Amino acid sequence: MAHGIDPLDLAKALIAVPSVTPATGAVFDVLESALTPLGFTVERFIDGIEPDGPVENLLAVRPGKGPVHFGFAGHVDVVPPGVGWSGDAFVPEVRGESLYGRGAVDMKGAIAAFVAAAAVTPPEAGTISLIITGDEEGPAAFGTRALIEHMDARGVRPDMILVGEPTSAQRLGDTVKIGRRGSVNIWIDVPGTQGHVAYPHLADNPIPKLVRILAAIDTVTLDEGTEWFQPSNIEFTDIDVGNGATNVIPASARARLSIRFNDQHQGAELIQMIERIAHDVEPGAKVVGKISGEAFLTPPGELSSLIAEAIHAETDLLPELSTTGGTSDARFLHAICPVVEFGLTNATMHKLDEAVAVEDLHQLTAIYHGILMRAFL
Amino acid sequence: MAHGIDPLDLAKALIAVPSVTPATGAVFDVLESALTPLGFTVERFIDGIEPDGPVENLLAVRPGKGPVHFGFAGHVDVVPPGVGWSGDAFVPEVRGESLYGRGAVDMKGAIAAFVAAAAVTPPEAGTISLIITGDEEGPAAFGTRALIEHMDARGVRPDMILVGEPTSAQRLGDTVKIGRRGSVNIWIDVPGTQGHVAYPHLADNPIPKLVRILAAIDTVTLDEGTEWFQPSNIEFTDIDVGNGATNVIPASARARLSIRFNDQHQGAELIQMIERIAHDVEPGAKVVGKISGEAFLTPPGELSSLIAEAIHAETDLLPELSTTGGTSDARFLHAICPVVEFGLTNATMHKLDEAVAVEDLHQLTAIYHGILMRAFL
Ligand SMILES: [Zn+2]
Ligand SMILES: [Zn+2]
Repeated sequence: MAHGIDPLDLAKALIAVPSVTPATGAVFDVLESALTPLGFTVERFIDGIEPDGPVENLLAVRPGKGPVHFGFAGHVDVVPPGVGWSGDAFVPEVRGESLYGRGAVDMKGAIAAFVAAAAVTPPEAGTISLIITGDEEGPAAFGTRALIEHMDARGVRPDMILVGEPTSAQRLGDTVKIGRRGSVNIWIDVPGTQGHVAYPHLADNPIPKLVRILAAIDTVTLDEGTEWFQPSNIEFTDIDVGNGATNVIPASARARLSIRFNDQHQGAELIQMIERIAHDVEPGAKVVGKISGEAFLTPPGELSSLIAEAIHAETDLLPELSTTGGTSDARFLHAICPVVEFGLTNATMHKLDEAVAVEDLHQLTAIYHGILMRAFL
Repeated sequence: MAHGIDPLDLAKALIAVPSVTPATGAVFDVLESALTPLGFTVERFIDGIEPDGPVENLLAVRPGKGPVHFGFAGHVDVVPPGVGWSGDAFVPEVRGESLYGRGAVDMKGAIAAFVAAAAVTPPEAGTISLIITGDEEGPAAFGTRALIEHMDARGVRPDMILVGEPTSAQRLGDTVKIGRRGSVNIWIDVPGTQGHVAYPHLADNPIPKLVRILAAIDTVTLDEGTEWFQPSNIEFTDIDVGNGATNVIPASARARLSIRFNDQHQGAELIQMIERIAHDVEPGAKVVGKISGEAFLTPPGELSSLIAEAIHAETDLLPELSTTGGTSDARFLHAICPVVEFGLTNATMHKLDEAVAVEDLHQLTAIYHGILMRAFL
């Protein structure tokens, strides 16, 4: 272990640099300082303007002799700390058995563990890349997508990618994500003609039409789920008429819904389906959709197997291969190669007093090392 | 015509005193000054506190020898002028063939016409009362209801009442109101449990429940109308969820509806019906109703006939006996005796540049006089 790295020390150093999304600068300096002595070639670039930027991204590559190229993807930006921490969210502190600080589990701790794992992996065994963005928690407009373009331009193409998001639920190693549902928000705007409730024939009330549209959508079953995905789900998230006058028929009515969908659907097809239902009731209805991400699945195979084996070797756990939860940058990386997500426990992510068990940092380092060694076999 | 009064002059004098609802003071002074020389005994009282008051009310009685007691009801308060008048809303001005000013048709013009009609009606023919409030356009909390209590206490009880609201549509005399629909506003509040759209099993979305409640209400037919009333009607007037976050299932959802109902229904019964429908879907739904007024009908009979005859004698029109439109203070007065509403054309009521044709003021005076003479026959 010529360049042994303590993942606790590196996690502390990363947490000590505030990096609320979108992140640039100092937090990348800390990471670069850790990677360069390990033989990584580090490239950093800044993209985007306010309010979604500027965003810094980092690509670190350590070429190996073996044929396999393993990528690790993650982010150094964090969500705002919020008010009410026991200590300072950006002053890392070990209390009892845990390290406290914003980013401890999501996901500076996992980045530290991966760097420490790379440090004890023989460089000649295989090529390792770190694909690290400063904008995963924000709009992600200039983050991992820009990194993928940069990798394309440089000819950097991993054979498999592990995303270090905090996927573990109760215990480190209990859950691995092999896919994510897609997500689309859809707005329905039903026009009408304003008028007085006493003279409804002179008005055209948009609310009953919107109610009929929503009632029709409410009866839709998108699918029954698949072997790897739970059923796709439609949730109404808002209705807004904004009419304060009790005796006025409003001029328009709006609703918003969110669909989380599995790999049987595409965002655009779902928007079209909602539009068809809306236009059946009111041809003048305006339907606008915004796709946050398409669904993806890395079917169980080589990558998930070697991850599961490495987890089992260290923890005796057989991880569940899950596709639940929100979206992640894996939705972009999936275009390159098989992608699986695995990292720390997520109980405190995005919460006050975010914390990681110190023991988990060491165990995750060992698991990541086991994954690399198995990938390079 | 010992005390001849020009209805144009009196209308101008009333308009020249701003009396945005609720009204007190000077506008009543003008009216009292006109009535006292005609032999009326005038009583005025002020009731209520801010914000719904203070409100002034006026009861004027001129006892006659004949057995019949004819009441005329109205209001001297006006709605706010708004911005954009050609002239000053409170500076009465005759331009062309019309008198302009806030209250010209609703309903200082009609009050002036009635006073002028009373002036040319022999005092001995019958008893005449004027029941005039300063709060018809507002919440009417301390207006005609207080006047009715006052009349009860004084033993003043007309045999029939004419309300001078602007009921005419295209031409003076084309429409008389023999009833009004009732009105009730109902709020439905559906509780839920807030959560993240990615984890709907941990939340309880109130919007689909509200949609099902509204869809059920949307299928309700209250009635098919009656000989004198159009069908009762339910209008949704608002839905409010107020959830700005696209990934959040909201904690509650509210809707508001307005029911205009004929004399086959009562407000309380309608509130209970909506509550039953809501509770069928969600027993925790909270339903609150506020009855603005019950429906009433003065079936065609003596009062409407003598009014129609007086109109026909002056205009050659056969007035339509209508029950359409909003509520009026007739809903309270109906408890005392038969009530019919008849007054000026309503095209400009509550609008900018409210105006009455000068000729209509004189013709309405003649019609009101004809009504009094026929009532006292
Ligand atoms: Zn994260
Ligand atoms: Zn009025």
